[in-house]
Amino acid sequence: MAKGLPKRSEDYSLWYNELVKKADLAEHSPVRGCMVIKPYGFSIWEKMQSAIDKMFKDTGHTNAYFPLFVPKSYLSREADHVEGFAKECAVVTHYRLKNAEDGSGVVVDPEAKLEEELIVRPTSETVIWSTYRNWIQSYRDLPILVNQWANVVRWEMRTRLFLRTAEFLWQEGHTAHATEQEAKDETMQMLRVYADFAENFMAMPVIQGVKTESERFPGAVDTYCIEALMQDGKALQSGTSHFLGQNFARAFDVKFANKEGKEELVWGTSWGVSTRLMGALIMAHSDDNGLVLPPKLAPIQVVIVPIFKSEEQLSAIREVAERLQAKLKSHDISVKFDDRDTNSPGWKFAEYEMKGVPLRLAIGPRDLENGTVEVARRDTREKETKNLENIADHILTTLDNIQANIYQKALDFRTQNTSVADSYDDFKALLDDKGGFVMAHWDGTAETEEKIKEETKATIRCIPLDFQPGEGKCIYSGKPSQGRVVFARAY
Amino acid sequence: MAKGLPKRSEDYSLWYNELVKKADLAEHSPVRGCMVIKPYGFSIWEKMQSAIDKMFKDTGHTNAYFPLFVPKSYLSREADHVEGFAKECAVVTHYRLKNAEDGSGVVVDPEAKLEEELIVRPTSETVIWSTYRNWIQSYRDLPILVNQWANVVRWEMRTRLFLRTAEFLWQEGHTAHATEQEAKDETMQMLRVYADFAENFMAMPVIQGVKTESERFPGAVDTYCIEALMQDGKALQSGTSHFLGQNFARAFDVKFANKEGKEELVWGTSWGVSTRLMGALIMAHSDDNGLVLPPKLAPIQVVIVPIFKSEEQLSAIREVAERLQAKLKSHDISVKFDDRDTNSPGWKFAEYEMKGVPLRLAIGPRDLENGTVEVARRDTREKETKNLENIADHILTTLDNIQANIYQKALDFRTQNTSVADSYDDFKALLDDKGGFVMAHWDGTAETEEKIKEETKATIRCIPLDFQPGEGKCIYSGKPSQGRVVFARAY
Repeated sequence: MAKGLPKRSEDYSLWYNELVKKADLAEHSPVRGCMVIKPYGFSIWEKMQSAIDKMFKDTGHTNAYFPLFVPKSYLSREADHVEGFAKECAVVTHYRLKNAEDGSGVVVDPEAKLEEELIVRPTSETVIWSTYRNWIQSYRDLPILVNQWANVVRWEMRTRLFLRTAEFLWQEGHTAHATEQEAKDETMQMLRVYADFAENFMAMPVIQGVKTESERFPGAVDTYCIEALMQDGKALQSGTSHFLGQNFARAFDVKFANKEGKEELVWGTSWGVSTRLMGALIMAHSDDNGLVLPPKLAPIQVVIVPIFKSEEQLSAIREVAERLQAKLKSHDISVKFDDRDTNSPGWKFAEYEMKGVPLRLAIGPRDLENGTVEVARRDTREKETKNLENIADHILTTLDNIQANIYQKALDFRTQNTSVADSYDDFKALLDDKGGFVMAHWDGTAETEEKIKEETKATIRCIPLDFQPGEGKCIYSGKPSQGRVVFARAY
Repeated sequence: MAKGLPKRSEDYSLWYNELVKKADLAEHSPVRGCMVIKPYGFSIWEKMQSAIDKMFKDTGHTNAYFPLFVPKSYLSREADHVEGFAKECAVVTHYRLKNAEDGSGVVVDPEAKLEEELIVRPTSETVIWSTYRNWIQSYRDLPILVNQWANVVRWEMRTRLFLRTAEFLWQEGHTAHATEQEAKDETMQMLRVYADFAENFMAMPVIQGVKTESERFPGAVDTYCIEALMQDGKALQSGTSHFLGQNFARAFDVKFANKEGKEELVWGTSWGVSTRLMGALIMAHSDDNGLVLPPKLAPIQVVIVPIFKSEEQLSAIREVAERLQAKLKSHDISVKFDDRDTNSPGWKFAEYEMKGVPLRLAIGPRDLENGTVEVARRDTREKETKNLENIADHILTTLDNIQANIYQKALDFRTQNTSVADSYDDFKALLDDKGGFVMAHWDGTAETEEKIKEETKATIRCIPLDFQPGEGKCIYSGKPSQGRVVFARAY
């Protein structure tokens, strides 16, 4: 077992990196900027995917798959989009290697140059809208409610596992609608789906809001987001849902005949969450002993560790453990019985703490005599000895309690770390001393937003959906403001 | 609804292309060589994925994710591997675009040239074994039983939807073991998993066997495969499982300390199936009316079509349909009730036939009076009127019967189209007149294999696992042979 972690309070960033490594979640790959998601990390991502995918299907969406490559010229079709995405991307220029003449290995074959370069998709609006053009003739073909699970590449020089990597995994929904209202409703519906997932599965409270113009997705009319607060007081954008208006329909000439037979441009949305959610999940709940996972996303929800000195003891414990395991499995609880004799119980305790297993049961010879089991919660680190009778019910209830407790703890943290600033001095002091979300008046201009960002590194995370209109003065310019927006330093 | 298909007997290739299009499975994308997998096609692939993934997990494997890119030099580490894969691949040479000076769009920024080119993975042995090097120190770290679901790219000039595309989706398992025997056992286990999936889910009988040296995976010691027979008499390789020996361990210096503390090279396997299975599924069972899907892989297993003239009739039918739908859903049967009034029942019948829905129920006003329903099987196209009482049981049984019948039909077809040839003239005549698998003696040399391929376009699909030793003479060279191998023309 790996040794302990650095403390969050001493070096949050190092704590995060070490935790990702020691909990076997991911590692840097030999390929610059790309990560390897290790089996344990991937099994958490699979739980996320499965829950999100179900929510998409329950709201009428289906999955499909579009090409990895985008022809270079496609990116240029939408003016904002190319500005946003063409700059840092992986460009395929050739389609063949050949043996080097000096025998030193393989080299790019200069004769195999592509006529038009291909970009490894940084996002798929362009290739998807060029496809939708052929799928849509009439209002009967609408809406199209499609999602894809895919890898995307955005060249990044400074990477951090899960939070910012050149290649990452995500889902991208792309929908097409006959009316503006329907597209707007879809945008908001998917924002709610993301908030629902974040809060009810990840146990992570989020603020829902709309981005300012300067933080908008390139090519969108409006970008909505969910913003979560990490334990170091920094915000993390955890999902976005874009109302695209008719921008991509215009760029790719996607029209439909309405009920009156008149041609109109199609309305669009796109929305996505990525493996960045893994970073959010890790940072929202974990502690100095390792990962803390909400039971709904834990690949192993309960681990049973036998404490034994002899093979006879182990087999007596195994009998009890396997019966309990079977019972819990019938309730869809994933249980691991770790009967390895290569590692001590203490080593195992530390290992499963590091990996964030919500409940640990320990059974020793004395427990067998007494008909008891030791139950340890990962979130509170409380231990209690319980009777084996009705233990399954107790476990089910406790898992629910852990899910609720983790959420409540994160919510309390956010409440404590959400402040109101009425002057720029207060604002700066709050950011430096406390961090967190700072609610402040803003004059609505991109210039002020940019100045504040330059001077404080804080950005407007969003104009919250529950925006309270209320006259005030911009903390920076003193100009009139219509209400407070959410500032924070962010990942 | 799309008009009818070309007949298989007249133009099999055109029939396939049209079927893929008209059943809404996939289409060519604007990006050369890449396909768009449409929602209906993707929903079949999802059913496949889910069944295969479960089989992998049941045999102790976990999923992970490795980078999309392979550094060029990695490919060269294993001599056969680079010969096999470096030739036709997508090469990333730059990481940035910039605005063209003449304002014509974006161009590759020559200053953003990569020091070492990156290859879009054609397969991931190299990047994975370079990672395993860090994961493996001791025998305690073995075995590693990892799979990834991913996209891969192999540049192809001549593409066919699902069968041969530049980008395709697949899974690739990569395992590492302490002993040769364990790696060999794993290779065979995964071959059996593939055969099990093909036969019991796809309802497609397969021959299991080992490839000849010339058809081996580049870098493998032995390549095992499952081979299926399509309705035009051509074979389709549907999955491969490779025993890699210590080749990749040697290339990437992956060693472990055994129980005696002595360093040894690790043994490896890799195995994969891809979206090519979609092509196999389509071609194995479908007919001139469209797709025929085995119930276990059909996204919609039962469709209910109401026949009505008035809203009153429809709502009376809906009541019956929804009750039945709920009942079937409780048995995990996916049922669609298609109550659209935009299309006639006849249109819907043709549509669901084209899409291969195994069972179609039609309910009209007379059925309501009589308490009956019309049940139509897609595979046999038989219709019968059944009493509504106990209809759910009848449907469950019939779905099982369809699954079994489709398999039996494909097995009978294969039996009828497997021949034995004892002379080269017979062999050529069989290939031209009948196609199918031809069992023939071969002298074991690559030269003979190559000559036969040149002259007849038939290849040795495999040396079957149930190889019957038996003296004979090679049909081509007349030299001694130890038994018959499986020849066919193939996709």
